[in-house]
Amino acid sequence: MRKERLFTPGPVQIPERVLKVLGEPIIHHRTPEFKEIFVYTRELFKRMVDSPSENFVYFASSGTGAMEAAVVNFFRPGDKVVVINAGKFGQRWGEIARTYGLEVVELSYEWGKSVDIDQLEETLNKNPDTKGVLFQISETSTGAYHDYKAIGRLCKERDCLAVADAITALGVYNIKPEEEGIDILIGGSQKALMLPPGLSVLWFSEKAQKQLNKELPKYYFDVAKEVKKQKEGTTAYTPAVSLILGLRESLEMLLEEGMQKVEERHRLMSLATRRAVEALGLRVFPEKPAISVTAIYSPQAEAIRKEMLKLGIRTAGGQDHLKGKLFRISHMGYLDMLDHLSAIGALEMALSKLENDPTLLGKGVKEFQKVVLEERKIS
Amino acid sequence: MRKERLFTPGPVQIPERVLKVLGEPIIHHRTPEFKEIFVYTRELFKRMVDSPSENFVYFASSGTGAMEAAVVNFFRPGDKVVVINAGKFGQRWGEIARTYGLEVVELSYEWGKSVDIDQLEETLNKNPDTKGVLFQISETSTGAYHDYKAIGRLCKERDCLAVADAITALGVYNIKPEEEGIDILIGGSQKALMLPPGLSVLWFSEKAQKQLNKELPKYYFDVAKEVKKQKEGTTAYTPAVSLILGLRESLEMLLEEGMQKVEERHRLMSLATRRAVEALGLRVFPEKPAISVTAIYSPQAEAIRKEMLKLGIRTAGGQDHLKGKLFRISHMGYLDMLDHLSAIGALEMALSKLENDPTLLGKGVKEFQKVVLEERKIS
Repeated sequence: MRKERLFTPGPVQIPERVLKVLGEPIIHHRTPEFKEIFVYTRELFKRMVDSPSENFVYFASSGTGAMEAAVVNFFRPGDKVVVINAGKFGQRWGEIARTYGLEVVELSYEWGKSVDIDQLEETLNKNPDTKGVLFQISETSTGAYHDYKAIGRLCKERDCLAVADAITALGVYNIKPEEEGIDILIGGSQKALMLPPGLSVLWFSEKAQKQLNKELPKYYFDVAKEVKKQKEGTTAYTPAVSLILGLRESLEMLLEEGMQKVEERHRLMSLATRRAVEALGLRVFPEKPAISVTAIYSPQAEAIRKEMLKLGIRTAGGQDHLKGKLFRISHMGYLDMLDHLSAIGALEMALSKLENDPTLLGKGVKEFQKVVLEERKIS
Repeated sequence: MRKERLFTPGPVQIPERVLKVLGEPIIHHRTPEFKEIFVYTRELFKRMVDSPSENFVYFASSGTGAMEAAVVNFFRPGDKVVVINAGKFGQRWGEIARTYGLEVVELSYEWGKSVDIDQLEETLNKNPDTKGVLFQISETSTGAYHDYKAIGRLCKERDCLAVADAITALGVYNIKPEEEGIDILIGGSQKALMLPPGLSVLWFSEKAQKQLNKELPKYYFDVAKEVKKQKEGTTAYTPAVSLILGLRESLEMLLEEGMQKVEERHRLMSLATRRAVEALGLRVFPEKPAISVTAIYSPQAEAIRKEMLKLGIRTAGGQDHLKGKLFRISHMGYLDMLDHLSAIGALEMALSKLENDPTLLGKGVKEFQKVVLEERKIS
């Protein structure tokens, strides 16, 4: 008997409450019944991002689809954009932007680093015609955090859109895009929204709305067409019905917990994990770690992952040039404190076996427990 | 976010595979469709107890119902029976037997003790007219093990039925009643069969079959009537349909694992738990612990249970005079190694908080891990 626990940064462990709904008979999407649910999920989403605006759309697509939608709906060929590239997903922003003929000014960082806000400000000052800054809040490939609030502030002062890929940040951080100067916010279902893959969301500000245009070709990812329909409680094309039904549950769960508490939970679990990992002599990879996923550097990454999987913990590996050198433990999805404790326990067992060092046993768990108990004492 | 994990000795954690079936639309019990499933579960059960005999019945009842059925179908008023009483469930055997006018010779032991086989042999020698020995394989209230194979051997030589309450032993130990001289074997669904409560099973040997009689009153628990029906693939009264559908899954799961491996799994988890508990300075309560449930003595039992529950682990307390002095961690049901590790982690956190002793953190987990890794090295 061995249960597999998904500690991967998407897909994630899905709550029973959501699974139950996903298993229910499908309803047709052109019915008052579905419309009511659809509209209700939009109300919930507005509460999650703390904004009454109806300017957002769901797509039946992965998160990358919504990234493409951001580029083709809010920019024009030749528009200058600054891309923060410090990992696989920053790189993706550049690829999409170039595909559509945008002029990309790339702020490249070594993988594991975060954006240097002063350098970004300088770049924006040097390029006053910049139409957007494209970045990740959490760069999933390296576990790095980019200070989205600082980026939001810089863009707010300028004629420039802050375009946040929040695919592994929405449902983790208590993001308030309107207040925080984020103009486009993108999320994906299979991350902290605790759903199967296949649904993305794109929220946009009033400032972004003014930039909506038809210059770049699009059909499926036409935000203007889609948002008009969705404001009326329907969709331009067939929606991902089951995922919308599931979204109702997962958004309710997040809101019942409260977005501030949700952020605190991820903060605590990631902190306790980092302390445990360091106690075991491993190195947390990113300089400024995100709270959604912890990336750990080890030349033995693949062997560790394999041993952990045997014990019931599925982690993610490194991507591209970090393949075999990183393993990543996600904090998103339906994972509670004891799930995390068991992941640390499995990591210790894996390491102790690989390094033939029984003194590692209990060492990480102890640090993990200390952090958790300390927090419980405070709150 | 906090998940509750049932570490109680019934009900237990139910596998997703079983839950899925329990959630399916109900089927009618007088249909060929149900009959086929019913007969199939009987085939599976025969494989589990390693006997081709059709001499067993399912009841829609808790395990106690099947205990009563054992008394009223296989004994007569005035029959002498030896009851092994070393806990709440041994006591229950005495109560049922006396209710129906059997003559009870009670071998009483302090709670936590196990049967003294020499003393039992002596008693049987002194009482050659003993018709049955009524006992538990695992005394759930104290976590004690009674050596059922030794009892089986003693009864085999005599004109006496070995009547085993295996409610927390069936699906834990690789019990082969025919080979091991057990004449009546009783199980309950909500224990190691990994189902909700409401289904019991009573298996009986050829020797027991000869004792089937109508002298004591019974209607619902009429084994002769029920076994005739069930051999034909039906039931005398409405069966617990969903539980039978679930039983198909849980028996398949147990048989896929293999009953020997199932026993080894419980043996390992209980051993690792005992070592962890002792490393934390606590005392395992029974002299000869069963592998289905670990009972731990502590004057702080209730406070420990409360703290563990806050962290997501539901344990059982002590019963009767041991209320407040015992807590019990079950190893039955859908709980894997990492679930157990997390329970030990929670226990440490609870203790360290109550005793204000951070040195306890990681201490039990370490011992737990050592036992598991040692076993993995061997096998």
